[in-house]
Amino acid sequence: MRSQQRVVSASAAHGRTSGKAADAVRAADAEWLKAYTAKDLDKAVAFCDEQGSMLMPNAPIATGKDAIAKLIASHFAIHYSKLTWHPNSVGVARSGELGYTSGTYELSFKDASGKTIADKGKYLIVWKKHPDSTWKVLFDMSNSDLPPASPL
Amino acid sequence: MRSQQRVVSASAAHGRTSGKAADAVRAADAEWLKAYTAKDLDKAVAFCDEQGSMLMPNAPIATGKDAIAKLIASHFAIHYSKLTWHPNSVGVARSGELGYTSGTYELSFKDASGKTIADKGKYLIVWKKHPDSTWKVLFDMSNSDLPPASPL
Repeated sequence: MRSQQRVVSASAAHGRTSGKAADAVRAADAEWLKAYTAKDLDKAVAFCDEQGSMLMPNAPIATGKDAIAKLIASHFAIHYSKLTWHPNSVGVARSGELGYTSGTYELSFKDASGKTIADKGKYLIVWKKHPDSTWKVLFDMSNSDLPPASPL
Repeated sequence: MRSQQRVVSASAAHGRTSGKAADAVRAADAEWLKAYTAKDLDKAVAFCDEQGSMLMPNAPIATGKDAIAKLIASHFAIHYSKLTWHPNSVGVARSGELGYTSGTYELSFKDASGKTIADKGKYLIVWKKHPDSTWKVLFDMSNSDLPPASPL
């Protein structure tokens, strides 16, 4: 129920989120996760704006579909045993074309030596509504909660 | 000129940024940096929304003025020899109350042993315009471009 409370709180406090618009952004966030867990590269890249940027730790900014496709492909090459994220805050501008989701992620995978690496952290996505009413990723950023070089 | 090009490109592509609104968000971004370099804690914290969140690497999400004040104070305890950031992308919703800045940062400081640590990376800030027309930080996130545990 926490996430629902945050959304209601964000709506009330910021006065910019209609329930329907926030629901649409939250749905896009969930659908993007589905494309990620299915490792559907075309679908995952299609969620991004042509001029979208991914701001991932330990790498420079990747801007544009080609750079994003390369980056997502590198993620899909990892054999995740767990990959999930969940927004605990969702907002949309009153004009309905710019929004954000922010929350936490958890993942784990086996490295080359077979050792399980677990990570958890947070993310912030800025979304833009396209003329066809789909929401696209303008910026996607994440970082870890864990101390450097200290996996769980 | 690159940053100007990005702003114009973002305006044209996303159709949501009036020059004046984008300028106001860009100015807030620059003023927040000034408060940071002056280590003016009250002023730096005042840039944040009451329900704002800072999403810093290697730490959980800090939400609300008290948590943010504690986090910024911990930054101000560092003896930076360099601390700067610059937005290369700025956008505001058509309704004029939600916006973002995103760009790169550079910093360096001496650690406890006197060794200079240098870092560079990127950031994404979501801004909310308050009724008094000031722009406040809803989300501030950053991460490093450098490989883990490999300072410049």
